[in-house]
Amino acid sequence: MLDWIAFDADDTLWRNEEYYLDGRDKFLEVLQKYGIKAEDIEDIDQFEVENIQYFGYGVMSFVLSMIENAIKLTKETIHPGDIQQLIILAKEMLTEEVAVFDGVPALLEKLSAHYPLMLITKGDLLHQQRKFQDSGLSSYFQALEVVSDKNPDVYEEILKRYKINPEKFLMIGNSLRSDILPVLQAGGWALHLVDHPTWSHEDDPLIEKNQDRYLEVNGISQVDDLINDLNSGISN
Amino acid sequence: MLDWIAFDADDTLWRNEEYYLDGRDKFLEVLQKYGIKAEDIEDIDQFEVENIQYFGYGVMSFVLSMIENAIKLTKETIHPGDIQQLIILAKEMLTEEVAVFDGVPALLEKLSAHYPLMLITKGDLLHQQRKFQDSGLSSYFQALEVVSDKNPDVYEEILKRYKINPEKFLMIGNSLRSDILPVLQAGGWALHLVDHPTWSHEDDPLIEKNQDRYLEVNGISQVDDLINDLNSGISN
Repeated sequence: MLDWIAFDADDTLWRNEEYYLDGRDKFLEVLQKYGIKAEDIEDIDQFEVENIQYFGYGVMSFVLSMIENAIKLTKETIHPGDIQQLIILAKEMLTEEVAVFDGVPALLEKLSAHYPLMLITKGDLLHQQRKFQDSGLSSYFQALEVVSDKNPDVYEEILKRYKINPEKFLMIGNSLRSDILPVLQAGGWALHLVDHPTWSHEDDPLIEKNQDRYLEVNGISQVDDLINDLNSGISN
Repeated sequence: MLDWIAFDADDTLWRNEEYYLDGRDKFLEVLQKYGIKAEDIEDIDQFEVENIQYFGYGVMSFVLSMIENAIKLTKETIHPGDIQQLIILAKEMLTEEVAVFDGVPALLEKLSAHYPLMLITKGDLLHQQRKFQDSGLSSYFQALEVVSDKNPDVYEEILKRYKINPEKFLMIGNSLRSDILPVLQAGGWALHLVDHPTWSHEDDPLIEKNQDRYLEVNGISQVDDLINDLNSGISN
């Protein structure tokens, strides 16, 4: 029934959000030197979300936003050595070892025997490509698409370019905003990994009318069975 | 004779290097406040080149490197307000209007009537995609490839993916390092726009043995004639 299966990468196949949470902790540590407490910062995400229009998604955007925010919150009193620490943090995040989730290689091995697999990920181009290579998972995939955003237009362009019928396309991911809702809107199937960590900005609510072709599981280990059920016409 | 023609984007179809030179001027202006003169800085490019391994190519990499370099050169005495100015510079560069070179739309209109055209560009993904859309040139192209580096492997992967015979592929660009040498090495034709501005890091020398299938012109206006000659078997 399915012609292609696509996966999100960050927080779907490997750890990601926790590195950003660690990054935020380091940011708060730096700010604490200036008497600024976590509870004083209402909009820690706000700078980053506003800067997406300039910097897109990814570590460089995250760190540039933290630097900007730190300068503002400290009223321009932050020591340049502390800004340098944030740039070092960026380099560490960009070279962090890829920690693949349990069960992912086995799942990809099974699925890739029956379906062409595609990875669709957003973020810094070089970083995403490096993680793809370093993950040891690249040989399971027929295609890698690094995109600057994940909206219905982007998915439609990919489906068109690969000549995929949306009704025969399944996207698997952790983010309702990026992996699920836009794929449903583009006419595809979407499988939500509800138990995977997700950045709050990515947590859009499901809208009732979009729930056709929506699937969910509580872990990577349930994905294969669900796809088998789907193909037997049992699911949904 | 040719099946596909590919173009580089920055400094080939539209202005780019001069925005970076302006950026460097602003950087020097900031540093002058701290008694640092242009002639004191030997390695203004060095930081950027060393940081490519982390940040790749593009405006975010450029600005993160300038911030790092400024912190070092001022021995951590730079005022945070000046660092904020460099972040504002990044946002300005990322939203700069696209200034297409004279003759480019007419050339693309002619060529696109006879060949599928591809744009192959490196840099920040979101920024490159935006420039492609804002340039007004996107309709002339069948394909856009934003890559994190331009080396023979990258070109070979693209040629393979599009099922293009390298001998029937021509790349046109301003950078010997990125647009010309790796394409020659991958077995393709390469046309060098010798009069276009180019970042010094991109100016690798031509190596004698690579000069098969190498072409050059002194301006966009000569490209069409040269391709006609090439097809008539006159050139090279």
